[in-house]
Amino acid sequence: MPKQPEHQVGGHEAGPGKVGPLVDDSGHFYKPLHPGDERGTHEVNFYTSFSSDPRIPSSIRSFFPAFGGTKLLPTSDSSDVLLPHLVLEDLLHGYTSPCVMDVKIGARTWYPQASESDFDKYLKLDRESTTVPLGFRLCGLQVHHESGRWKPDRNKVRKYTVTDVRQVLRQFVSKNPDETHPDCALASSVYGGSNGILAQLLELKSWFEDQTLFHFYSASTLISYDKGGMAARVKLIDFAHAMEGEGIIDHNFLGGLCSLIKFISEILTDTEAEVRPANNGIV
Amino acid sequence: MPKQPEHQVGGHEAGPGKVGPLVDDSGHFYKPLHPGDERGTHEVNFYTSFSSDPRIPSSIRSFFPAFGGTKLLPTSDSSDVLLPHLVLEDLLHGYTSPCVMDVKIGARTWYPQASESDFDKYLKLDRESTTVPLGFRLCGLQVHHESGRWKPDRNKVRKYTVTDVRQVLRQFVSKNPDETHPDCALASSVYGGSNGILAQLLELKSWFEDQTLFHFYSASTLISYDKGGMAARVKLIDFAHAMEGEGIIDHNFLGGLCSLIKFISEILTDTEAEVRPANNGIV
Repeated sequence: MPKQPEHQVGGHEAGPGKVGPLVDDSGHFYKPLHPGDERGTHEVNFYTSFSSDPRIPSSIRSFFPAFGGTKLLPTSDSSDVLLPHLVLEDLLHGYTSPCVMDVKIGARTWYPQASESDFDKYLKLDRESTTVPLGFRLCGLQVHHESGRWKPDRNKVRKYTVTDVRQVLRQFVSKNPDETHPDCALASSVYGGSNGILAQLLELKSWFEDQTLFHFYSASTLISYDKGGMAARVKLIDFAHAMEGEGIIDHNFLGGLCSLIKFISEILTDTEAEVRPANNGIV
Repeated sequence: MPKQPEHQVGGHEAGPGKVGPLVDDSGHFYKPLHPGDERGTHEVNFYTSFSSDPRIPSSIRSFFPAFGGTKLLPTSDSSDVLLPHLVLEDLLHGYTSPCVMDVKIGARTWYPQASESDFDKYLKLDRESTTVPLGFRLCGLQVHHESGRWKPDRNKVRKYTVTDVRQVLRQFVSKNPDETHPDCALASSVYGGSNGILAQLLELKSWFEDQTLFHFYSASTLISYDKGGMAARVKLIDFAHAMEGEGIIDHNFLGGLCSLIKFISEILTDTEAEVRPANNGIV
């Protein structure tokens, strides 16, 4: 029986009078498709076309949630109302203590075909957030510390400054929940290593330097790892505004991705620099 | 005696009642500094700070014109009026038949500190040109063909569409001036090779993936080679809106640069593909 997800950090959440996504025990994530909302239709079309496109390398395909078509289901707020749902892979299935960040990539979230009022709305959000200065913004996060779960309010996350983002990217890989001096104790195992977040982001970057098939406006990277032991993972989500690339690379996504990569590299460099003198001191 | 440059393709040109830049026989380029124009002062400040910054690798420094301070000179339109000029290296000094493109890099030319009216003006130009879709736009060009010099009017260049840009990047390395079927005969020697345009752009790209010192809004790459035999060269110019990077990479410039790189790579791939079957046919 599908139920509301425990660990959602971004996207449209269920609330009083608001229909939200569902998950089940078999690892499915169901995203409601509201009648008349073009974004849902657009996202189904994207997944349909993407999942059968032979030009996507399989190593890149694994960055995207598996797609299972659509399914009629009772909505999250009423068992009497049936609504079509987009069927996707539940990216946090099996996690016991998931640490998750939803990072919306790109220095602009407006797309060429947007109406003038949408254009104004998205541009305003971009200028008021870190989207313009950083080329990405945080949309939501949760971190499990020994002392419990830290899940800042999404309205607070939306107002993060550049300094806040720099700090949160360190807190995300820290054992202590200290906001001023995060220990970054997990940086090398989560961000670093041959299968870590940085390596995965670099693999994505290589593809984005070359691919001219899609432009991903307002899409996010979902960065996750499990305090319960599961490996660090990067996935791409939210394709309500994915567009045809028309032979041009997605320089907007690529630029933002490179900016995120630089921040994460710096955390790794700083962490290694902190460890090294101590080791040398013993010799 | 400084005189007006013969081969300027971008920037503020001299004209009736308009003061323009000057060049001399020793390889200097003099850019007039108009009293009260903050952009000139800003550019002098940028060159002053950049030229003494020890954090710039020498391989990267060579992408920038050499800087020689400022100098009081009679203006281009009157020997009676003295104006301070920014003294730079004349990037086309010694060329006999220079082929030049001024490519303004970045998907946005407005900068955070711009006034709201400047912001509106720049954003409009970005949306009406290829700046938004491609991440770069052509500001001017000239090409020498056997039949003469082709230097399209700058107002025409400003209106280039994505299709036009794709075509002009091929015409730039063609022997024939045919607008519909450029032969790309010089692509491998100008764009390709270990010292060609592509290799230089890739070296710049590596630096932009890492450097957080400067953000180059509205700056251009000047791409040139000489039909008279000089090597292909990439230089960065126009720093009236160069800003402090504040620890963030210039994802706007980097994204646009990667887009230009992709276009040039494709021309090389297409050209090689056309050559290869003919060679194989002989064997």
